[in-house]
Amino acid sequence: MTQIPARIFILEEGPREGFQIEKGPIPTARKVELIDALSQTGLQQLQIVSFVDPRRVPGMADAEDVVAGITPREGVVYTGLWLNERGFERALATRRLDMRGTIVAGASDLFLKRNQNRSIDEQLEAQRALVRRYKSLNVPIRRGGVMAAFGCNYEGDVPIARVVKLVGEILAIAHENDVSLDYVSLADTMGWASPLAIKRMTGALQDAYPNVEWALHLHDTRGLGIANAYAGLEMGVSRYDAALAGLGGCPFAGNAGAAGNVCTEDLVLMCHEMGIETGVDLEQLIECAKLAEDIVGHPLPGAVKIGGTLQRLRASMKSA
Amino acid sequence: MTQIPARIFILEEGPREGFQIEKGPIPTARKVELIDALSQTGLQQLQIVSFVDPRRVPGMADAEDVVAGITPREGVVYTGLWLNERGFERALATRRLDMRGTIVAGASDLFLKRNQNRSIDEQLEAQRALVRRYKSLNVPIRRGGVMAAFGCNYEGDVPIARVVKLVGEILAIAHENDVSLDYVSLADTMGWASPLAIKRMTGALQDAYPNVEWALHLHDTRGLGIANAYAGLEMGVSRYDAALAGLGGCPFAGNAGAAGNVCTEDLVLMCHEMGIETGVDLEQLIECAKLAEDIVGHPLPGAVKIGGTLQRLRASMKSA
Repeated sequence: MTQIPARIFILEEGPREGFQIEKGPIPTARKVELIDALSQTGLQQLQIVSFVDPRRVPGMADAEDVVAGITPREGVVYTGLWLNERGFERALATRRLDMRGTIVAGASDLFLKRNQNRSIDEQLEAQRALVRRYKSLNVPIRRGGVMAAFGCNYEGDVPIARVVKLVGEILAIAHENDVSLDYVSLADTMGWASPLAIKRMTGALQDAYPNVEWALHLHDTRGLGIANAYAGLEMGVSRYDAALAGLGGCPFAGNAGAAGNVCTEDLVLMCHEMGIETGVDLEQLIECAKLAEDIVGHPLPGAVKIGGTLQRLRASMKSA
Repeated sequence: MTQIPARIFILEEGPREGFQIEKGPIPTARKVELIDALSQTGLQQLQIVSFVDPRRVPGMADAEDVVAGITPREGVVYTGLWLNERGFERALATRRLDMRGTIVAGASDLFLKRNQNRSIDEQLEAQRALVRRYKSLNVPIRRGGVMAAFGCNYEGDVPIARVVKLVGEILAIAHENDVSLDYVSLADTMGWASPLAIKRMTGALQDAYPNVEWALHLHDTRGLGIANAYAGLEMGVSRYDAALAGLGGCPFAGNAGAAGNVCTEDLVLMCHEMGIETGVDLEQLIECAKLAEDIVGHPLPGAVKIGGTLQRLRASMKSA
């Protein structure tokens, strides 16, 4: 039987998710300011930049400068995202990031075709090549991942059996290369999951691969991010990607595809109220969320930064 | 064993929750426009106004005019809210509302003191007087309710045992007066509930009163409204208050206390994606949410009105 975990691990993706999608230019110094503030909150892993084509994602053109600008804090892991070997080489060249390889499959042929001009199988072949490159450089490979695991705007619902099979292929690539993955992440890339879908998918995967740990990457496109995270907690999932203040999309821009990740501080509050440890100082995290709002210059979706914490209310009652 | 219900019943409170809190004046005709649009969506019960002191809630000063202005639709129940006998008499005098009595207890002495200048026991006594008044006029009494059932900004966490006792007193008042309640509603008036708290509270109440049906009134002050609704569904709760577009508070005004109810269209999408019937046409409901945003003149929190429905995406794939 699964049970709600006593502690969860959060991968904070706000800086990467947020700054790659904001329309207005954001000064490098302000990105660095936010990342340095986040490093004081107790969050243990920050994904701070992506190494992608600056013509396609101008907001990430300064990725190298951001990495060079931060003041790394002991005990905090700083990572970047890349989608191909070129991005990987750029990340490596910074010499300041924690390099962690990932084996990523996509659950939708049409999505992969549109985004990376590859089929599911070609994507898996490309991963094999990347794994060899990682190994040749002694870059540890920690994570498996399935993109669009719950559904795809081009292809529709994704059958559970397909994801079970893909995870099998990811584990096979790991095994072929003597790699032991820490966990496999299921990404609801386009906001198709419901809490019931989360339970069915993770349940089937837990049955098929009982020794694997799971993570959830949840987008809030249809307002179900936090309910999906709760469903994950009930399935014993203890790793979540999240984005400060819900960074990563402006829900007020009418851009549905751009809706951000589940909001970190709302997730942390939910966990703390249920007795689940996160290691995060929620009041400090809220200050970071307000800073993020100031930096992007428009309201961001998170609720707790407005509603405030219950712990603060409880403390004020005791001292009254 | 409880199980997820096959169908839920939604009490739409958007017009009442929303228009009583908006700062700017909203023309009566536009309130009527929204209510008439909502009556076309399949929602079966609309709470459209509150009868409260117009000096304290100027946005509801036109409550009688709103009620007079709507075009009632067959099969839709239109209700109003009142907090005391004076409000009840005003509602009655409109002769156009479905008059339904409620027996309401408050779970926090300090909250009741501040809001109605009464203790918990005085509130119960006042309910006894209202019940006699309802009975003398043949107004059916359908609902019990507990305000601040999960916690209170003035008093803190509310013990489960206190709510169990209060529900017992509500049922006793009903019994004394030969009244059979349809259900008892648990209100998270100030946004204190977590999904775990929902499960523990409803579980304890279901054990104590196995023949009672339950409803949840959930505010989204800390972003957990939809997760709390999902926890309710898992406990078999089949009645939810909700507010179109999350009306009922402007999360961008910095007014934490004002955060609205769980968003109706987000709740409906979650239910439909899990195979739970609501009787609601979600696309039409989204049009109403956009209308509400147009009427209040600022962004409202609901996500689905931006993200769009998955059913529409699925249909477009089939026709492609």
